[in-house]
Amino acid sequence: MAKVVCVLYDDPVEGFPNAYARDGLPKLESFPGGQTLPTPKAIDFQPGTLLGSVSGELGLRTFLEGQGHSLVVTSDKDGPDSVFERELVDADIVISQPFWPAYLTAERIAKASKLKLAITAGIGSDHVDLQAAIDRGMTVAEVTYCNSISVSEHVVMMILSLARNYIPSYQWVVKGGWNIADCVARSYDIEGMAIGTVGAGRIGSAVLRRLKPFDVKLHYTDRHRLPEAVEQELAVTFHKTAADMVPVCDVVTINAPLHPETENLFDNAVIAKMKRGAYLVNTARGKICNRDAVARALESGQLAGYAGDVWFPQPPPKDHPWRSMPHHGMTPHISGSSLSAQARYAAGTREILECWFEGRPIREEYLIVAGGKLAGAGAHSYSAGDATRGSEEAARFKT
Amino acid sequence: MAKVVCVLYDDPVEGFPNAYARDGLPKLESFPGGQTLPTPKAIDFQPGTLLGSVSGELGLRTFLEGQGHSLVVTSDKDGPDSVFERELVDADIVISQPFWPAYLTAERIAKASKLKLAITAGIGSDHVDLQAAIDRGMTVAEVTYCNSISVSEHVVMMILSLARNYIPSYQWVVKGGWNIADCVARSYDIEGMAIGTVGAGRIGSAVLRRLKPFDVKLHYTDRHRLPEAVEQELAVTFHKTAADMVPVCDVVTINAPLHPETENLFDNAVIAKMKRGAYLVNTARGKICNRDAVARALESGQLAGYAGDVWFPQPPPKDHPWRSMPHHGMTPHISGSSLSAQARYAAGTREILECWFEGRPIREEYLIVAGGKLAGAGAHSYSAGDATRGSEEAARFKT
Repeated sequence: MAKVVCVLYDDPVEGFPNAYARDGLPKLESFPGGQTLPTPKAIDFQPGTLLGSVSGELGLRTFLEGQGHSLVVTSDKDGPDSVFERELVDADIVISQPFWPAYLTAERIAKASKLKLAITAGIGSDHVDLQAAIDRGMTVAEVTYCNSISVSEHVVMMILSLARNYIPSYQWVVKGGWNIADCVARSYDIEGMAIGTVGAGRIGSAVLRRLKPFDVKLHYTDRHRLPEAVEQELAVTFHKTAADMVPVCDVVTINAPLHPETENLFDNAVIAKMKRGAYLVNTARGKICNRDAVARALESGQLAGYAGDVWFPQPPPKDHPWRSMPHHGMTPHISGSSLSAQARYAAGTREILECWFEGRPIREEYLIVAGGKLAGAGAHSYSAGDATRGSEEAARFKT
Repeated sequence: MAKVVCVLYDDPVEGFPNAYARDGLPKLESFPGGQTLPTPKAIDFQPGTLLGSVSGELGLRTFLEGQGHSLVVTSDKDGPDSVFERELVDADIVISQPFWPAYLTAERIAKASKLKLAITAGIGSDHVDLQAAIDRGMTVAEVTYCNSISVSEHVVMMILSLARNYIPSYQWVVKGGWNIADCVARSYDIEGMAIGTVGAGRIGSAVLRRLKPFDVKLHYTDRHRLPEAVEQELAVTFHKTAADMVPVCDVVTINAPLHPETENLFDNAVIAKMKRGAYLVNTARGKICNRDAVARALESGQLAGYAGDVWFPQPPPKDHPWRSMPHHGMTPHISGSSLSAQARYAAGTREILECWFEGRPIREEYLIVAGGKLAGAGAHSYSAGDATRGSEEAARFKT
């Protein structure tokens, strides 16, 4: 029987709602392109409720305990005295989410001698040292596509909000003012702008599709070129590298996984190649952008705005400069954890566990590492290596 | 020689920027559908700068004074002692914007014996008592299409921001928190939702087009039915009335002009017909929604969110309930006054004035009232009548 350790974010400090804002979720048929939605044999949770926080338990307890497995759920993930680090020692399976990542560094993997499976309840397994997981022969799996559309919606929202200066304008209302000129002195239509995505996979393509009717000029860079028919349909221009693409863009959105080749990609040099007054939206991973270079570019006016919901580490310390830099529109890491997304990744996590316990193969598209190498989605999108360095700083959030 | 009185919003209290956030504006070829952009013979302003506030003067002073006309520009528009009411007495032409409307009530028109032309530098002439303008034989003109796309972008931004709970999530970042569960307990994807527009003219159609790739179900109501080919292209379902449409919608967006038939359309009864937890976005005119019914519906949870940028009167008093009701995402009236839009409506205002002074016809699509009746765009979209009742309350903003 397996011991499963599940790291989830804290329950609401403001308490659970008496009633959720809405009754249920729209019914979807499949993911775009036809990939089937998660297909567990059953679920023990109510879609549209909080599943990703500690007491939600991803809806797994009845299922796991019914089969004789044990489940430990905690939000206490950082530092050597954390519940996660203690429980990890004899865990068989770790489940974590990108929003509140349980960093599986090489040191932690070394301590967890029984660990065979790491599941990301979401997309993006960069919180796992993939090289260490490969060396150990672990399986790493994630719920591919479960929240790609969620994130693409967040990206479009943030592009519009930065360009149109939404949040500062809202704040004038709340303060009792009617300061139109103060609001609109930084407000632009996106119509006619050039918008480029770094990465045109599931999320990046969904962003391009959603932006097309805004009558913008679309650009992309990716290590995999899109089919010619898709390029034509979207009227999107390919560039070999991000550095080639950014000089022509008014808006850049990052929709690529984090791995050693994308880490620190938007540093001083690449940001300097952008147009003055461009907007940068990063819902991919915090480490793809250099923390201090972004803050400086906002202060100098090189960037007109920065938004996104990914940070490093997570949670970021209270004095992280992205909390207070000018002209930002940041959120905590929530774009892929809407109630809509939670229902899908809880179901997908259960699907992976059912396969694992029954000895059935996990869907190829869910695999990141298997059999001692990058596999499935991992082989398509990742590089072997480690992107967890520096994660110990997350413990500073507690203080 | 004519006396022109131009009412514009105040200059920024935070001061003009040393440098604007961006260098210039994207170049557009024409409006969607082929209507030409404004075609003045020349312009005396820099596109991309503040033109709609007092010192911007819509870029008109050199042009008007060069022809021997006089120009008075003021933001002081409300109450019997206002500069506007004093200067109106011998004005030939009044120019105003919907964002900071100079209410031309029947009483004010009666006092302005020389007034022949009222220009709206923007779209929406409900701040003019159209019945009184008809009776007087005035011409009322607006810059049709100048900011329709601007507003449509604002609508999509606000729909996404309400559904995804953007602003409260941003606020957690600024407060130093990482309260994912508090953010996402009210966060939903719009994918799969039913979204309906009241009004499918230039703005409403642009909203539908922009929402289509979000894989939502589209609905509309309008007194003019869209061509069948457009209905099919957008896969949009027609409803005869707003009351018929709202029960099936998760999101309702209002994109109709204000006239006696749309005033107070969203009252207690219509809001009660909406799905519990629906979102309502109104960038059309404040008076289309009942002020207190909206606030009550947010408090009860009947509405999950309300956003928009139109109020009544404008500016709204500091104690207007829409400033403080729960789950709102309001802005001042800015959606149609981005720097991008200002360049177009300043050019369109000049085009109208050139035509007027040279005795050339004003474009049919710019006309609201002419020759003692509704004309042009006015005949298509408005009803004769008065929607200015209650506007005297705007003077309360000063106190």
